[in-house]
Amino acid sequence: MRAMSLAEIETPKLLLDLGRLDANLARMEARADALGVALRPHMKTAKSVDVARRAGAGAITVSTLREAEYFAAAGFTDILYAVGIAPVKLPHAARLRQSGVDLTLTLDSVEAADAATAVSRALGQPLPFLIEIDSDGHRAGVAAHSDQLLKIAARLDPAWTPLRGVMTHAGESYNLRGDEALAAMAEQERAAAVLAAERLRAVGHAAPVVSVGSTPTALNARKLTGVTELRAGVYMMFDLVMAAIGVCGFADIALSVLTTVIGRQDAKGWIIVDAGWMALSRDKGAARADFDPGYGLVCDEAGAILEGLTMIGANQEHGIIGRRDDMPPEPGAFPIGRRLRILPNHACATAAQHQAYHVLDAGGAVTAVWPRMNGW
Amino acid sequence: MRAMSLAEIETPKLLLDLGRLDANLARMEARADALGVALRPHMKTAKSVDVARRAGAGAITVSTLREAEYFAAAGFTDILYAVGIAPVKLPHAARLRQSGVDLTLTLDSVEAADAATAVSRALGQPLPFLIEIDSDGHRAGVAAHSDQLLKIAARLDPAWTPLRGVMTHAGESYNLRGDEALAAMAEQERAAAVLAAERLRAVGHAAPVVSVGSTPTALNARKLTGVTELRAGVYMMFDLVMAAIGVCGFADIALSVLTTVIGRQDAKGWIIVDAGWMALSRDKGAARADFDPGYGLVCDEAGAILEGLTMIGANQEHGIIGRRDDMPPEPGAFPIGRRLRILPNHACATAAQHQAYHVLDAGGAVTAVWPRMNGW
Repeated sequence: MRAMSLAEIETPKLLLDLGRLDANLARMEARADALGVALRPHMKTAKSVDVARRAGAGAITVSTLREAEYFAAAGFTDILYAVGIAPVKLPHAARLRQSGVDLTLTLDSVEAADAATAVSRALGQPLPFLIEIDSDGHRAGVAAHSDQLLKIAARLDPAWTPLRGVMTHAGESYNLRGDEALAAMAEQERAAAVLAAERLRAVGHAAPVVSVGSTPTALNARKLTGVTELRAGVYMMFDLVMAAIGVCGFADIALSVLTTVIGRQDAKGWIIVDAGWMALSRDKGAARADFDPGYGLVCDEAGAILEGLTMIGANQEHGIIGRRDDMPPEPGAFPIGRRLRILPNHACATAAQHQAYHVLDAGGAVTAVWPRMNGW
Repeated sequence: MRAMSLAEIETPKLLLDLGRLDANLARMEARADALGVALRPHMKTAKSVDVARRAGAGAITVSTLREAEYFAAAGFTDILYAVGIAPVKLPHAARLRQSGVDLTLTLDSVEAADAATAVSRALGQPLPFLIEIDSDGHRAGVAAHSDQLLKIAARLDPAWTPLRGVMTHAGESYNLRGDEALAAMAEQERAAAVLAAERLRAVGHAAPVVSVGSTPTALNARKLTGVTELRAGVYMMFDLVMAAIGVCGFADIALSVLTTVIGRQDAKGWIIVDAGWMALSRDKGAARADFDPGYGLVCDEAGAILEGLTMIGANQEHGIIGRRDDMPPEPGAFPIGRRLRILPNHACATAAQHQAYHVLDAGGAVTAVWPRMNGW
């Protein structure tokens, strides 16, 4: 396509800064290399074949079977579906494996193991599994030291539901701040996964795969001894949540939403723009006691942060920008039609509101439109 | 398509109860008839041609130009785009009008009026406008009694940017509760729009259109004297926000998200399901001091509310269901694979996470899949 200037683009649109994306990808690759583990990027944030290719990704992680199907169609065939499998999805998973995808599934209960073994046998299609370990009390998984772990492994059938190993995700890292706390959580994540694998091996399971990861722990782990692969996704884009945790700066955030001033309420110091929660999502996850960016931080068209401005309100297609310090913006600086960019709280949530990335080159022109997939 | 049982459907999926939809549509039609105004349904919630046809909609309201294009392609040609126009979108609006769509635009400033007049003249395509009135201090619009109103009208060119009248939306009604407060807000909305139209007529503008509406005010207006048309959208589906405001019951909510139990943390009383914020949105707008449904109220597969259960947490593809009263759910009642349905906080936001409605007939079978549009 011909390069387009931002001034030509109807708003709201999702912008992806290619230079920042590349730097973020390189940073995580260097981390994985330094830690001596394979990187299995999680595509749940980007949901884009173009981004996956840019990442040079071989093996990938996905959050839905539709993602698996989408990436498989583009030639990615080593895929981990990192959400506990619902029995109703087992035939779909089997079809993907039959089509040549080396899909690995996840579970954390005897009930799920029994369901999977019954279905794989009935369909004549083996379904390999990782057992999910709960390393942080955040969500799913069994404790690494639990009897449950060995019971699940015993119920998996080597012929039909081969056990490939263990995986864990320290999502609780999103509630921490600072290198020390994150390094401690990374060690907790590593230790839980390695302990679980060792306990499985002690009773005769090979359990070759030990898979860990979240962006904050991946970027702060001091060592990953015993781990075989690292998963992370949001690091490709970064966002205000990651900046609040301290694993990136605002200048690393590769995603922004391009918007246009469509009105003002000068008496209140409000600037009304055409990016509301539909374009930004309802996620306000970056709010902290000492810093609340509302629905997003406001930048000029070139991406420079406009100090003190924040999106204080959002309706479906209207955003309300105000000042955090209650000093109203200078109306003359925000004429109707001015372009602004909003840095998102949560890249996964904001990107999911859009159907494509408008890709910005180093000169600030849009040189490509990369589609993304959504839905189930 | 052949009728499918819910048990066959991979989750998460968005369900639309046809009987409830029809009852909700009929209720608003009866309101508009009783109030003696035309109904111009807002398609921003449903974003579906099938729903618009079910509503028997002629004239419609949209929230994006892409919606206008989508509905125009299906034969809906009387369309109000009810968000203040960004200058960059004027050529797109002109193309839609050139293609035969009677598109009306909205603005609330002299700057936007000047931009629109310049573009419509340059393109040789008249662009008719409503002036947006601020009836509640909620968002956009000029005050009905302001000098600004007459200045904007004076800047519109009868040949190129004909003034069709005024519109207002009392979005502040979402922060009220109970019939009396909503009836008062409906009167405030009506009075502001009618005053603005009368002031315009007093200085020689015809201003035939007086357009008002929000679901809560539309359902509680005692009279709409002087109003010509009523706009509302979320009434088609209803949601927990509308139930909290008091304009519907839980049993009127036509949308739900079908999900599957994929795990449990019995020690914590958690049920893990495969609908997270990606399927439900991050919207928690129904939370009140005396009632907080979290990410949604939990129903059984048939749609009956399971008392006391609520979605207390949501990650991207994981929902965590717990009890509001801290009594843990009975694990045996929630085996892996059990189907549940979640009533959403905000129908517009939840529906936007999906690409289709799975339409439920009176027998609880899925008899149609209605696509919806998203994006800009």
